[in-house]
Amino acid sequence: MNYQSAMIDRRWRSWYPVAEDAEFPLQNLPYGVFERADGQVRVGVALGDQVVDLAELQAAGLLAGTPAADKNLFDQSNLNLFLEQGIDCWTAVRMRLAELLRADSAVLRDDVRLRDRAMIPQAAVQMFMPVRIGNYVDFYSSREHASNVGKMFRDPNKPLLPNWLHLPVGYNGRASSVITSGVNFHRPCGQFNADESGPPSFGPTRQLDIELEVGFITGTGNSLSVPITTWQAANHIFGLVLLNDWSARDIQKWEYVPLGPFLGKSFATSISPWVVPLAALEPFRVAGPLQDPPVLPYLQYEGDWAYDLQLEVWLQTARMNNPQRICRTDFKYMYWNMVQQLAHMTVNGTNVQSGDLYGSGTVSGPTPDSFGSLLELCWKGTQPIRLSSGEERRFLEDGDTVILRGWGQGEGFRVGFGELRTTVLPAKVNVVAENQ
Amino acid sequence: MNYQSAMIDRRWRSWYPVAEDAEFPLQNLPYGVFERADGQVRVGVALGDQVVDLAELQAAGLLAGTPAADKNLFDQSNLNLFLEQGIDCWTAVRMRLAELLRADSAVLRDDVRLRDRAMIPQAAVQMFMPVRIGNYVDFYSSREHASNVGKMFRDPNKPLLPNWLHLPVGYNGRASSVITSGVNFHRPCGQFNADESGPPSFGPTRQLDIELEVGFITGTGNSLSVPITTWQAANHIFGLVLLNDWSARDIQKWEYVPLGPFLGKSFATSISPWVVPLAALEPFRVAGPLQDPPVLPYLQYEGDWAYDLQLEVWLQTARMNNPQRICRTDFKYMYWNMVQQLAHMTVNGTNVQSGDLYGSGTVSGPTPDSFGSLLELCWKGTQPIRLSSGEERRFLEDGDTVILRGWGQGEGFRVGFGELRTTVLPAKVNVVAENQ
Repeated sequence: MNYQSAMIDRRWRSWYPVAEDAEFPLQNLPYGVFERADGQVRVGVALGDQVVDLAELQAAGLLAGTPAADKNLFDQSNLNLFLEQGIDCWTAVRMRLAELLRADSAVLRDDVRLRDRAMIPQAAVQMFMPVRIGNYVDFYSSREHASNVGKMFRDPNKPLLPNWLHLPVGYNGRASSVITSGVNFHRPCGQFNADESGPPSFGPTRQLDIELEVGFITGTGNSLSVPITTWQAANHIFGLVLLNDWSARDIQKWEYVPLGPFLGKSFATSISPWVVPLAALEPFRVAGPLQDPPVLPYLQYEGDWAYDLQLEVWLQTARMNNPQRICRTDFKYMYWNMVQQLAHMTVNGTNVQSGDLYGSGTVSGPTPDSFGSLLELCWKGTQPIRLSSGEERRFLEDGDTVILRGWGQGEGFRVGFGELRTTVLPAKVNVVAENQ
Repeated sequence: MNYQSAMIDRRWRSWYPVAEDAEFPLQNLPYGVFERADGQVRVGVALGDQVVDLAELQAAGLLAGTPAADKNLFDQSNLNLFLEQGIDCWTAVRMRLAELLRADSAVLRDDVRLRDRAMIPQAAVQMFMPVRIGNYVDFYSSREHASNVGKMFRDPNKPLLPNWLHLPVGYNGRASSVITSGVNFHRPCGQFNADESGPPSFGPTRQLDIELEVGFITGTGNSLSVPITTWQAANHIFGLVLLNDWSARDIQKWEYVPLGPFLGKSFATSISPWVVPLAALEPFRVAGPLQDPPVLPYLQYEGDWAYDLQLEVWLQTARMNNPQRICRTDFKYMYWNMVQQLAHMTVNGTNVQSGDLYGSGTVSGPTPDSFGSLLELCWKGTQPIRLSSGEERRFLEDGDTVILRGWGQGEGFRVGFGELRTTVLPAKVNVVAENQ
């Protein structure tokens, strides 16, 4: 079985009403972890404005015939146990849910008591981190983003480094500080050295930035020393999330040579609470950019592995009443795709684990309004963003709220991630200062 | 309570005989995870040539009076649950074990039946990974090592980069591929580009190297956005291990700009199976090198935080009957110490977790025979090592076995790590080639 077996026909509708432009129709059924009003933490899927509690469906016997029927996979505080079951289980559960929720299916629709227990308004629940993240890797796979950075900091005429077109550059990130929507963080402190002529300074970062990314979460892994090939890769991928790879540019600039980004990134990485199954994104697969020079055999692949997903960044300062869109781009621009990323990072034998998170790298498009970071949108601070409040932004200020959104637009339906919302809190400078 | 409360008097001796130059006397009591002949996996401590099964002691009521008395902390396949208990529990258990095992203590000594169950020869057990690693960070804290690398690859007259003396440079490593002694790995494949004028090649690495390091494992963490200070750091550190940070230099060289080492390191990292408690290393604390220029306030510390631990690397090729020592150095040379590393990496608010692993970086001393990598020992391949078999080595060949050893020498006792032994297996080239 593979993930494509779990596509849900675009003509199907659910008995629970979902607007045509809503992000959680029957074709999506993204997984998340939520707390019920009674304090129980459960795994559920989103449908319209509801969460469907999968532990209730399992307890009621409605998952009979699937590998999840007799297992306690959903009365859990994360998706990890479900992820470990593998693709046959994910496929069977997804198809069973589609059967239960489609308009002509009476068993749940007409069982008012069970519906009362199993269907909860999203507005009434608290969402948690969907997955206990094992390893977090961040790639750098947008040619436009890498070129913009190269133009700003290296050579405008030769912005890409020699390795960039030959392999999906990436690095290990910090897994412990991955947080989800609604979890805010304090502006990080650290060392920076504006001109590098004198000693460095210490304090709250002055260049707090976003990076608009899409992340994928692996369901099943591989053994040490046994690479995953490009044609095996998709069946290891459980689903996708929106990802905001927060960056402190001044800290990053001072520390990153020669071993890469560390404290400039490790303070927080945000992911959306809903994990959209790979099967739900099947309608949005498109050909990616031509790769020239040709890639080495282990990076070659068959089929279309870019995804046409619209992505947006919205910003709301403390003074604004409504957020303002500051970036609109598309995931289809990525030069390196997910199956190449997974094949590359395991070709040396590295073992992927269930619940790993892999970030795409900043998604930047070809036009200035499609750049996925403030660094690029404001071109290193030279072109500040003007906001409806009359304010300007080069980097983020305390109290700013950043919202990421993303969706694929199908014929008559939309498959979305929901929103990923984070507010920047002031630095806890006193923690460090008072202890000195 | 702090870790120093768990020092064991140097005059104490155990009723079980331990030679004066053996590595596991009463003053050590390192923790490990082992499989009994009956297949049960347990947490134990090493004493002489024995493992003491802590689950048996707990079941027999001998941990009464400690926080571990009524908890199932040791009938476990890793140390994580014990680590999470925190320093009061570690201290109480360690002092209780010392009381039970000291020469004049009869309760275990004279209970032949319990001794039969609880004391097992190390030769009869299989050791496992001691900890389920949460996050793995590798530092770069030897001035000699960083200088050697800078001399070879950058500027012989200005080998250190501008940030090096101001902060403990580090990066996130790969947690999933951390393995323990006796677990071998296959030579990794990857991209490299010898002269960078043409396209890269793909194949098994030709420059497989070791890095001799010491790692520390954290017991308890901090909340996101709340840094650990230098004076709090030691109480978060459970213990130390030997660490071999395997490196494929050709893969690393081609990939590492601008985001740091990735596939050149991620294929495997080895740690010793015994975790030596920080308290057991107290007798070996010494002053570290003078730090000039002075460090920023958040990196300042009180007390001596370098450790006088002798470290050795031994190499045995398939043709040799016995290993040959190729490096002898000392952990005391490290410029940046563990409390600075932990304070630095959390100063931006990053949260440390129970069971995290932090590597020191390659430990190189001032003399050519004290360099902790083949890259330095053979000075970029220009000065091959001559072995007793008549063979030469610039980098590792298939079938080579590398053994790391380390210990502190006390007055009349020695506190050691045991050995960390790994054999390099041939590349699984066919896995990649056959699938093409």
